[in-house]
Amino acid sequence: MSTETPRKSNFKTRIPEGDNLPRAVCAECGFIDYQNPKVVVGSVATWEDKILLCKRAIEPRLGYWTLPAGYLELSESAEIGAAREAMEEACADIEIDRLLAFYSIERISQIQLMFRARLKTPDIAPGPESQDVKLFSWEDIPWEDLAFPSVEWALRQFNETKDRSDFAPFTNPVEGL
Amino acid sequence: MSTETPRKSNFKTRIPEGDNLPRAVCAECGFIDYQNPKVVVGSVATWEDKILLCKRAIEPRLGYWTLPAGYLELSESAEIGAAREAMEEACADIEIDRLLAFYSIERISQIQLMFRARLKTPDIAPGPESQDVKLFSWEDIPWEDLAFPSVEWALRQFNETKDRSDFAPFTNPVEGL
Repeated sequence: MSTETPRKSNFKTRIPEGDNLPRAVCAECGFIDYQNPKVVVGSVATWEDKILLCKRAIEPRLGYWTLPAGYLELSESAEIGAAREAMEEACADIEIDRLLAFYSIERISQIQLMFRARLKTPDIAPGPESQDVKLFSWEDIPWEDLAFPSVEWALRQFNETKDRSDFAPFTNPVEGL
Repeated sequence: MSTETPRKSNFKTRIPEGDNLPRAVCAECGFIDYQNPKVVVGSVATWEDKILLCKRAIEPRLGYWTLPAGYLELSESAEIGAAREAMEEACADIEIDRLLAFYSIERISQIQLMFRARLKTPDIAPGPESQDVKLFSWEDIPWEDLAFPSVEWALRQFNETKDRSDFAPFTNPVEGL
């Protein structure tokens, strides 16, 4: 993510011709800034019975533990993106198994696709966005220090189905955990 | 979708500060045009044993049959978006069952989430983007006149699992159909 703040002071909100929702349109150059939900791809990746978590070196939630995940890039499949994020954040080489869950985080307009995956080797190391990376046994997961609610959802849903291959992917829990 | 073409002649490609990929940046106003994959949500929706298809009234693939689907909007869950599209394109009131498949269409940077769904009533009618809407028996599906490969993928994957509830969601077929 960039640290450069886009200057948007010349954008006015109006409904472009042929559209049915208001969009931000630049009064200087006419550019229409279509905003769409973003896709986050990530994984619950294991080595034997341990789960890979990353301690965030960036905001938001700096210092809290998260699953390796990030924005899908253009021209990238969801699975390739999830594997790239594990490599970038934890230098981890993973093999995707199947989709564990998809979450709709309406408040921030994100769709999160979380995969179940296996580490090909136990070799992990912090990437530039991580302070630390670690393989946790289930009983050692730092529940009080997880970065986001969806990290806890994915971990619990993973644990519930770890011995199964055929199940419908999970979605957001109906009630908060 | 808008018919208005954004003027992008002042955008130059460069890597913004703190980023690691080139982005289009407006030389006039400094705006960074982050491009991300877009999310399409849709459904294979049935009434009894018949499947809802819509004949497209818009390009691309005008006049060809498709499943009700379209771009997810901001602050919308995937399921709500898929139901909205069925209402907009076929005036169809649907109830989402589960995720049937997710496709990564890298060439056009789309993630498609296709749900299995049921029509609450058999009342359907063409919305503004449809020339016609119809409930097709499996043997009557117009295979030669489907709009996109992913429509055929979703229909065949639906048929393969129509009597099952527990299965991993499908992805793009490894080989083209």
